[in-house]
Parts: sequence; C-alpha cells; structure tokens
Amino acid sequence: MPDAALQTLCRTLAEQARTAAETLATVTRKAKDAWLFRGADALERRTPEIVAANALDLAGAADLSPAMRDRLKLTPERIKSAAEGMRQVAALPDPVGQVRDGSFRPNGLQVHKVSVPLGVIFFLYESRPNVTVDAAALAVKSGNAVILRGGKEAFHSNTLLHRILAEELASCGLPSHAVQLVSTLDRDAVGLLLKMNEFIDLAIPRGGEGLIRRVAAEATMPVLKHYLGNCHVYVDAAADLDMAERIVVNSKCQRPGVCNAMESLLVHQAAADAFVPRVGQALAARGVQVRGCEITRSYLSSAAEATEADYAAEFCDLILSMKVVPNIETAIAHIRRYGSKHTDAIVTGDLKAARKFVGEVDSAAVVVNASTRFNDGFELGLGAEIGISTDKFHARGPCGLQELTTYKYVVYGDGHLKE
Amino acid sequence: MPDAALQTLCRTLAEQARTAAETLATVTRKAKDAWLFRGADALERRTPEIVAANALDLAGAADLSPAMRDRLKLTPERIKSAAEGMRQVAALPDPVGQVRDGSFRPNGLQVHKVSVPLGVIFFLYESRPNVTVDAAALAVKSGNAVILRGGKEAFHSNTLLHRILAEELASCGLPSHAVQLVSTLDRDAVGLLLKMNEFIDLAIPRGGEGLIRRVAAEATMPVLKHYLGNCHVYVDAAADLDMAERIVVNSKCQRPGVCNAMESLLVHQAAADAFVPRVGQALAARGVQVRGCEITRSYLSSAAEATEADYAAEFCDLILSMKVVPNIETAIAHIRRYGSKHTDAIVTGDLKAARKFVGEVDSAAVVVNASTRFNDGFELGLGAEIGISTDKFHARGPCGLQELTTYKYVVYGDGHLKE
Repeated sequence: MPDAALQTLCRTLAEQARTAAETLATVTRKAKDAWLFRGADALERRTPEIVAANALDLAGAADLSPAMRDRLKLTPERIKSAAEGMRQVAALPDPVGQVRDGSFRPNGLQVHKVSVPLGVIFFLYESRPNVTVDAAALAVKSGNAVILRGGKEAFHSNTLLHRILAEELASCGLPSHAVQLVSTLDRDAVGLLLKMNEFIDLAIPRGGEGLIRRVAAEATMPVLKHYLGNCHVYVDAAADLDMAERIVVNSKCQRPGVCNAMESLLVHQAAADAFVPRVGQALAARGVQVRGCEITRSYLSSAAEATEADYAAEFCDLILSMKVVPNIETAIAHIRRYGSKHTDAIVTGDLKAARKFVGEVDSAAVVVNASTRFNDGFELGLGAEIGISTDKFHARGPCGLQELTTYKYVVYGDGHLKE
Repeated sequence: MPDAALQTLCRTLAEQARTAAETLATVTRKAKDAWLFRGADALERRTPEIVAANALDLAGAADLSPAMRDRLKLTPERIKSAAEGMRQVAALPDPVGQVRDGSFRPNGLQVHKVSVPLGVIFFLYESRPNVTVDAAALAVKSGNAVILRGGKEAFHSNTLLHRILAEELASCGLPSHAVQLVSTLDRDAVGLLLKMNEFIDLAIPRGGEGLIRRVAAEATMPVLKHYLGNCHVYVDAAADLDMAERIVVNSKCQRPGVCNAMESLLVHQAAADAFVPRVGQALAARGVQVRGCEITRSYLSSAAEATEADYAAEFCDLILSMKVVPNIETAIAHIRRYGSKHTDAIVTGDLKAARKFVGEVDSAAVVVNASTRFNDGFELGLGAEIGISTDKFHARGPCGLQELTTYKYVVYGDGHLKE
C-alpha cells in the first residue's frame, strides 16, 4: 500500500475513533450493557462462521508450534466462553460518572472528582483472537473507543469477530466506530497510529516483550505496559512449612507460563534444613528443574548452579531459581535487585516479618501467605482485566474498568470569583 | 565537562536517588514533618545568605526583562512565604499508606490497595527559585526522592536553597540524597537523566512549552505535563448577566498570565444584545483587547477580527478571543475544536444546560457559575500542588501529594492456593 493511502487510512481510523469517543463518553450504561448482551448472543449464534474463519487462520499457520496453534484456535466452547465474558462485563458497575471524591470548599464552591473515559485506546495484541472480544467489551463498557490491532496469524478470526461486534453497535444506539479493527496487516500502520497522539489517548500493547518495547519506544501517547514478572516467594524462618510447600508448588506449577507464576524461591537459612529437601522433592515430582545457590545445591544434588542471569530470569517454564538467605533483609535486597516489581510473596507466621516485607517490597502486589497466582483482576476483585500493569504511573497491577478511566473536576459555584 | 564524567555524575545522582527513595518510602510522617519544619526554620534563619546568593543571580541577569528579573528575585518576604509553604505541607495528611480500597474476597483472601510513593522524581523548572522549596517539600512529604534541575539564571539561589534543605535531612533521620540538585549547568545532563528510567520513575517539567516538549520527546520514563490552558467561558442564554460579567472579568483579568485564566469568551446569541456591549465595556475598562467574530464586532467597534489562530491561542495576556454562538451545541463543539481540555466554564441558570455542558465538555475542570481561576490545587482542596496536569493519564488537573503516589496491592491469605 502506498504511504499516502496508509496514512489516510490510519488517520481516518483515528479521527473516527475520536468522534465515536465523544459520543460514547455520555451514553447510558443501559445502551452499553445492551450491546454487551447482543454481542454475546451474536457470537454464540454465529459460531459456525467464526470457526470457519478461524480454520482459514489455522490453515495458514501450519508452521507454528502446537502451543501457538492451540492459542490461535477457536472452538465452540472458547467462543461461548468469550460471550460469557461479555455478559460478565455487563454485570459490572459502570465506571463512568462514579464520584471519586467530593466536598464543599470553605467558600461554598462544590467540587466533585468524577470518573470519565480516557477517550481513544489503541490496543495491540498477539495471537489469541478471543482477546478481540475481551478488549472491545472492556473498552466500550468504560466509555472508550478502541482501535484493535491483532496478530497477523489471527487476521481472519479477528476480522469476523470485529464485524460481528461492530454490527451490533448501531442497533444499541452506540457510535459505529466505537470498536474498529486496523484493516491492513501493513506493519507501518502501527508506527503511523502511534504518532497520532492528537486522536489517541493511550496505547496498550499486550504480547511479547518485543511488541511492548517497540510500542513504548515509538508511541507519542502514554503506554500501559505489562511486561512479564520475575516473581518471588520468600519462605521465612517462621513459616509453616506445610503451607510454604503448598504455596511454592501452586505459585510455580499451577500455570507456569504466566506472568504471576513464581520464578525464584528464597529460603531463610533457619528453615533450609527442614524445607529445602522436601520442597525440592515436591518440585522434582512436578518436573521442575531447580537452579540454586551453593547451599541449595548442598541439599539438592540434582540442582544446577544458578547464574546471575537465572536470578533475573522470567522462565515462564518449569524452571526455578533458588537461594538460601541468612535473613529477611537479604531476601528483600535480593528481590529489589533481581525482581520486576510484579508479585512477591512471603510465607511466615511472624507479624513483624510480614509487616517488614509488606512495607519494604515495592511490587504491584505483595502477598502474605498466599500464592503469587492471585495477582490478577478477577482474584483481586476488579471483575475483569485488560492486562497487569508493571508501570507505577496511572495504574499498577491488574487493570480493569476503573483503570481505563481518568477523572475530571466538576465545580459548581454561585458566581464565585477568585480573590 | 567530558562526556564520561557527566555520565558518571548523572548516574551517581540517579542511583543515590533510587537508594534514598527505598528508605524514604517507609519513614514515618513524624520524620518527614520534622524536616519540613526544620527546613522552614533554616530558610528563615539564613535569609541574609539566601538574599546574597540571589543577588549574584540578579547581577548575572541584567539582560532579562523586568518581569523575568522580578520572578527571579528572592526577598525576605518571599523566603518567609516559601518557609510557610513548607509548614503548610507539614500540616497536610501523609498520603503514603492511605488505604484506597480494601475488601475480603469470597475465598477469604484480604485485599488492600495502599498508596505508596512513585519513587524517584526528576523535576525540571525555570526561573523562580522558590519552586526549589515547593518541589522538595511535596516530594519528600509524598515519600519520593527528587532530583532538581532549575534554570541557569537561578543557579546560585537554587544551590544554596538546596544545600540548606539537604543539611536538615540527616538530622531528621531522612536519607541525605532524598533531595538532590543537578550540580552542573551542562544541558546534556538533562538528556542523560531522561534516559535513566531504571532509576527515575517520573519526570515533571514545569516551565515554558519548549521545555515541556523537549522533556516529553526525550524522556524514557513517564512525564507529567502541564501545558498552558486555552480556557473558555460560555455565557448561556439563561445566564444571570451580572454574574456573567463578574465571572468573565475575574477569569480574564484577576491574573491574566496563568494557565487557568480565560482566553476565549463564547456568548449565546439570545444574550448577545444585552451582554456583549456591557462586557465589552467592562473588559475595555481593564485594558483587555478583544478579537471577535463578525457579530461580536457589530457590537464592539474596537474589536479586531478573530482569526483561527486567535481561537486556538493561549494569550497569557490582556487579549481575549470572542464569539457569538447560536446554541450550546455550537459552544461545546467550539471548545472541543479549539480548547486545550484545561478549564472551561458555563454561566447559566438552566439546569439542563449545566448538565449538558458538564457531561460533554472533556476538560480537567468543568466549572458552573464560577471563575476559571478556581482550577488550582489549593482552591480544589488538594492543599498544595506541584503543577496542573493537562494529561489524562495518571493524574488530571491539579497535582498534589496524592497525585505523587501510586499504589500497591497488599494481599493477606491463610495459605490460599489458586484453583
């Protein structure tokens, strides 16, 4: 596609999104929820079409790994699950218009701080086509227009999913450009859209580190990043070792490929004798390969030597780095040095140790006596999430509907003048 | 300074700030407030020294305009006022540790969302040396380490103000690098620091548009921007015209050079006959030059013709663009097209018009029947402010202590595992 034509296409997308966002900001919850229900029904009703479009994607993806093909695949069950997701978003409260704070000032001026949509969101994602449905649902419910850019492997699936959802917008009184899909696979379209900060308020890349770094480097608008997590469990001297073993195994093995899975285990030396051999056995039984410090290896003969790179690594696999530490201070210093400020847990029965860990570990979620796997939007009570932010600015940790809003001050006076 | 030495200097600053921030995040309010009071006392006690250092800056700034020299000047009264500002910050609640939200999840997991400092703030500012004191006070009270970079005109003043405040840190048990000043005027230092996002969490440029654009373009960390405002007052058909005149005059003339002053006046055509001549007279009496549409000029013979550029302009001066509009929809469309989403006001007695304006105007502050000048941190109840954000992401409008924090999730379980 020639540059001028691509520029026009991108600019049109962005302008249409901006106009749609202006309308969408003031539509009622009733209209938004009606669309969520109608969209869900349409997805279920049109399942055979969706499966057929997905088959075209699968046919074109013969060279992908079985795991990647599985992520790409849409079955009737997965479509039903995406539709259910839309209905669950409908059940959540409307974040728009929520009064976050409000007071009368001493001079009688009445001040409200009210949640409003961010505006236009550019959402970039890879592979899984059901993310198309999740992102559209969360964006519209939070009053934001969204421009979707999926992976090329899922192009046929995404195109049809988008069309089905967009067709239901007008019938619910919503602007038809509230949900748009970038209709070209030209990679330059991404670069062009990332320069359009006059129309687009936020970019959210969801995918591998390469995608996120590219978007962060090129974007002229703010970017909500969610890098992977190098999450720790620290087993304190005062830990209940049965509980510690269960938490370690759950944090590592319940779903090893995700960002809130444990990547590194720290054990207080006072607990090492009793704990390292048994946890080593429990992990080995689940196929986990340990890379440990010298003391760890003195207990676990099968453990490899941990390098600096291992302590910093996000394995996303059945691999675990492990270190025996002399005290809680060393554990916290290790987490500060190697961690990614995502999710870090302590297992302890000691109140002082728990309070110290909670106070000094600066991660999006600091967990006491529970699995690291609980750091997600559903588990923390946000309802649904569009990702887990590793940024500290705007939103941190799971991002749900509230995190897709900003606020404005609404000020009522009776002719108040500044003195 | 050779590049390697400058790189080392900047990296040292940034690393020291990071280390200080780790400590500062967990110090008590008592220690922070003690520093605010001791710092205030030291400023007052050392007033002669400060005035002498400031005299060196003034001597070197002979070529500046009288207005700029006035901004640069530190008098005993201004030093006392800066000290009072520190004491006022001490009186504000500590934002760190505030529980923003909290609940038990259905499985018994206890979730708290707790305010924590952002970490390290790089604060860049121009001319007024008392900003050194304000920024240090707000940063430390909110638990953040700050790297200050003032304007070259104020170098002697800033250096001494920083030294006085830094000397009091250790005696209050605070880390001595909690407040640092970039000790070189080399402009490359700014570029180097803006690349150090591993140590610096946020950049805040406060000054002219050129500074803000440069920082936004070069920074690798998030930037809290506060551009100037193109603020509107819309006088509705149902306005009390006495009130409207007072609000227009106050919004424009009370302090014309600041970002929340009115730059553009919109008048409903039904009110034009009665309002435009009288407001024209009131503005002319205060030396305001009007640039208006054709209808405006039919009432005001002295008004110049308004161009597109005038409607988009932030005059920061006694100049006002003015337009008569056929209805509220046109007024809102005009604000959307030309406004800067900073502060926009409606004067009306009509509830429906007020609700429509509040709902559809997407500005940091939307004001009903009061002056635009109320959009600042003190007037809206934030206590003090480090600036007024024109961004929608993270914080919008006035930024006080709360806006200099983020949050973390603190999760307590009893051995909870993810199913």
